[in-house]
Amino acid sequence: MKQLLFIILLCAGAYITKAATVDTIAAHSDVMHKDIACVVIKPSSYDGKKDVPVVYLLHGYSGNQRDWITEVPAIKQYADQDSIIIVCPDGNYNSWYFDAPMDSTVRYETFVSKELVNYMDAHYKTIKDRAGRGITGLSMGGHGAFYLAFKHQDIFGVAGSMSGGVDIRPYPLKWEISKLLGSYKEHPENWEANADINLVHLLTPNSLAIIFDCGTDDFFYKVNVALHEKLLYYGIPHDFIVRPGAHTWDYWSNSISFQLLYMKHYFDTARK
Amino acid sequence: MKQLLFIILLCAGAYITKAATVDTIAAHSDVMHKDIACVVIKPSSYDGKKDVPVVYLLHGYSGNQRDWITEVPAIKQYADQDSIIIVCPDGNYNSWYFDAPMDSTVRYETFVSKELVNYMDAHYKTIKDRAGRGITGLSMGGHGAFYLAFKHQDIFGVAGSMSGGVDIRPYPLKWEISKLLGSYKEHPENWEANADINLVHLLTPNSLAIIFDCGTDDFFYKVNVALHEKLLYYGIPHDFIVRPGAHTWDYWSNSISFQLLYMKHYFDTARK
Amino acid sequence: MKQLLFIILLCAGAYITKAATVDTIAAHSDVMHKDIACVVIKPSSYDGKKDVPVVYLLHGYSGNQRDWITEVPAIKQYADQDSIIIVCPDGNYNSWYFDAPMDSTVRYETFVSKELVNYMDAHYKTIKDRAGRGITGLSMGGHGAFYLAFKHQDIFGVAGSMSGGVDIRPYPLKWEISKLLGSYKEHPENWEANADINLVHLLTPNSLAIIFDCGTDDFFYKVNVALHEKLLYYGIPHDFIVRPGAHTWDYWSNSISFQLLYMKHYFDTARK
Amino acid sequence: MKQLLFIILLCAGAYITKAATVDTIAAHSDVMHKDIACVVIKPSSYDGKKDVPVVYLLHGYSGNQRDWITEVPAIKQYADQDSIIIVCPDGNYNSWYFDAPMDSTVRYETFVSKELVNYMDAHYKTIKDRAGRGITGLSMGGHGAFYLAFKHQDIFGVAGSMSGGVDIRPYPLKWEISKLLGSYKEHPENWEANADINLVHLLTPNSLAIIFDCGTDDFFYKVNVALHEKLLYYGIPHDFIVRPGAHTWDYWSNSISFQLLYMKHYFDTARK
Repeated sequence: MKQLLFIILLCAGAYITKAATVDTIAAHSDVMHKDIACVVIKPSSYDGKKDVPVVYLLHGYSGNQRDWITEVPAIKQYADQDSIIIVCPDGNYNSWYFDAPMDSTVRYETFVSKELVNYMDAHYKTIKDRAGRGITGLSMGGHGAFYLAFKHQDIFGVAGSMSGGVDIRPYPLKWEISKLLGSYKEHPENWEANADINLVHLLTPNSLAIIFDCGTDDFFYKVNVALHEKLLYYGIPHDFIVRPGAHTWDYWSNSISFQLLYMKHYFDTARK
Repeated sequence: MKQLLFIILLCAGAYITKAATVDTIAAHSDVMHKDIACVVIKPSSYDGKKDVPVVYLLHGYSGNQRDWITEVPAIKQYADQDSIIIVCPDGNYNSWYFDAPMDSTVRYETFVSKELVNYMDAHYKTIKDRAGRGITGLSMGGHGAFYLAFKHQDIFGVAGSMSGGVDIRPYPLKWEISKLLGSYKEHPENWEANADINLVHLLTPNSLAIIFDCGTDDFFYKVNVALHEKLLYYGIPHDFIVRPGAHTWDYWSNSISFQLLYMKHYFDTARK
Repeated sequence: MKQLLFIILLCAGAYITKAATVDTIAAHSDVMHKDIACVVIKPSSYDGKKDVPVVYLLHGYSGNQRDWITEVPAIKQYADQDSIIIVCPDGNYNSWYFDAPMDSTVRYETFVSKELVNYMDAHYKTIKDRAGRGITGLSMGGHGAFYLAFKHQDIFGVAGSMSGGVDIRPYPLKWEISKLLGSYKEHPENWEANADINLVHLLTPNSLAIIFDCGTDDFFYKVNVALHEKLLYYGIPHDFIVRPGAHTWDYWSNSISFQLLYMKHYFDTARK
Repeated sequence: MKQLLFIILLCAGAYITKAATVDTIAAHSDVMHKDIACVVIKPSSYDGKKDVPVVYLLHGYSGNQRDWITEVPAIKQYADQDSIIIVCPDGNYNSWYFDAPMDSTVRYETFVSKELVNYMDAHYKTIKDRAGRGITGLSMGGHGAFYLAFKHQDIFGVAGSMSGGVDIRPYPLKWEISKLLGSYKEHPENWEANADINLVHLLTPNSLAIIFDCGTDDFFYKVNVALHEKLLYYGIPHDFIVRPGAHTWDYWSNSISFQLLYMKHYFDTARK
């Protein structure tokens, strides 16, 4: 009879525990000499045995590592449903995920694309390979995801952007970018070299799986359409979604489900 | 001990039976005096108690009701995952889902939008309401889904199109359309009146939830871009996805998962 | 010695007489009860034995049958070089080559496409067949050439337009068009039905060989670009040339040589 | 009587000999230390007395100096008709007519624009002046013609391109361009500096007579439309022709006759 109860509890448990686990970790950055907080969401299917894909999910300007989990709690279900780990690093409010030429204390390109990836591969049972790594984000984080993936295609196999600042040049006075790159007026070369739209030459057809979207009422709409057209011109395959909506969490809570569906398709086929 | 086994079987059963059911039904059309074969996919969660949303999924030119289930068996999982019924009617090879002005034996607009909907509502535990009805399809079926939904917004709440022939006028000699509408040269008014792109005046902002997509290598790419631009011009909110790909089942087997995700979001929020 | 001289003269003559002949004829119009002056240019190779292609060459608003021969005398050389007959009918200053719904005395559609064609076939050794008939013109005559050729593809095999008024709707108050069609305000249906750009449904791919051009500084530039884009959208093959230049004889004296080269290629291949 | 026969033969001869002469010459390149084969077509009117214009006609990728004369024998008639010399140099299969920064053995810019021009002026009775020199070509040769003419406007007065690769950047992995310029990923500066579309700043209005064309089904269609739009934006007068057709000799055998007609008009007026 004890056994019976035990089994009932086990079965029930299979349902009860069917929920992703949320950890907050502190990953050390050697290049910045500090620990950086990251939210890690493990799917309920995570058992430490099977290698799991990882999606790096970046926040926007003025945000932090808790933005996504707070504003879109459904990402836990998505992690479960797709059996993926989702990691949300802190992007230091306004780092733009750069190794900033004008501020040596900001080295978030190195942190996310190398140090955090190494941390995840060391501490979790991950697919240690670009075929199991995706990166996406919103706004500043959409810029960041494309910036890091275009430059580090050996690390990431699939990249997304939601309402991303995929060209920063039209916004020379905004969001403290000039503290990182210098003013556009005096250092145009830094702005040219660090705008996602100017890194298209790093791509070749299907070298990277790409999805991005933007709302028609978003102030970043035009730069996303421009990137779409440039990619079409260069013959770089990509998914591009235009939707109703603006620069809001309503928009991103919808968008993220499509981005993750795209990444799941990628993970399902990339290693075959 | 018997009980133990029983419980184990029960628990196991919860997993084993988790599979959609596929019926082939014959729905009678009064207006065409014939039975029409349809494939109906019920989700595993279907219990005859809870009202379930229905997605009407149309095939392309030269196809039949079995195309989708044969070419994309994964739609059974999608029906399960989203707890929706999917119905694939036979579209008579080349009906274009018209009540054809030049061929009174072709009345597929009436069949799909009235007779089949009534059949489904009578024989299944459906949400008997536009908030629980979606319609989508590929190519000729993409045309059909928009054609029926734009004209019958009282019936359908959400509409999709994949690689749809959303403007038929550039193809006056193709796919037997002229047998249904008369030649474009002699009956331009029929072509003008029955092209999806010319029915945009029937829409008002958010009167219908709309998603459509097309591959950049598809011969229908230009008409889809044209519809997207017209909808933008008219301020009609819609999701539009441009992807790599052509007029192939590879394309549609990917596309359908995004279309159903969109419809699931619609069904989840439409009745609130 | 006489013979010698005779032969020398003959040989010389072969060169001397190598010049097109210009006739002015009066072709009767039954429907308008009047004779209409036309300039006919016969190539030097014309011998009354071999069937020759004919190009109908229309003048612009405020012009007459002598415009082309006066302003571009080189068309005689082109007739020679290509062994074609060129006919320039009088278009009554401002007929727009219509059978005008608002002025029954204006029936230039019938005159040019039927009566004049019959006259030419009766009085000259022509190719009596669409494969040997081209039509082009400038401005009002570019409109006219497309208008007549789109509607009478049984008569004309190749059509051109130079700086043509290929959409008249943007010019409701100009060039006395409203005397022919009624005002655009009160009779929009006449304007819609008689604008070249609205006759594209009469074309199917390669049903008519089409060439047109316009100068970038021409006030008709935008309507020509619009027609080009509509033809691309409808998949109707055509040659379209954008050039520097405005609404001037400098422009047309250059343009006509390219139009005739195109027509020569058509005549050379159409009857094979 | 003998005289009579002689005169008859002379007269007849005037017709019989009316045919262009085709030489194959070997022009030495000092910079590449080798002889380079070129086909030279002299018009029948060439008499060594009158200065004659020269059109340099370039082949495409994987071709050689015999491509044009073999595939389009009618260019002999065109040379006759227009009284021009046509020269077809060997472009070394894949030189792209560059002085290649990554391969010092490839110096075809210098060869065509300096050494071959000097050879032609030394060995033939040419107009030794930009007003008597044109250059055009197909595909790689269209790129080459614009590349050389934009950079050497002191040498060439008129330039054409047929289906030209007028922007190479979208094709970083194709046609061995990366052997000449380095990979686009590592040497984007070479690609930027050597794409025709990026040399527009070398032009001023009417500094060079320009004609180019492309088929709507050509893979180079989009780059040609892009160059057309850039030239319009910069106010550089040019003739641009869009036609039906793809990357085929059918297309080019038609195109070349329009290109040469344009060049003839240029030669007729440039020296006045």
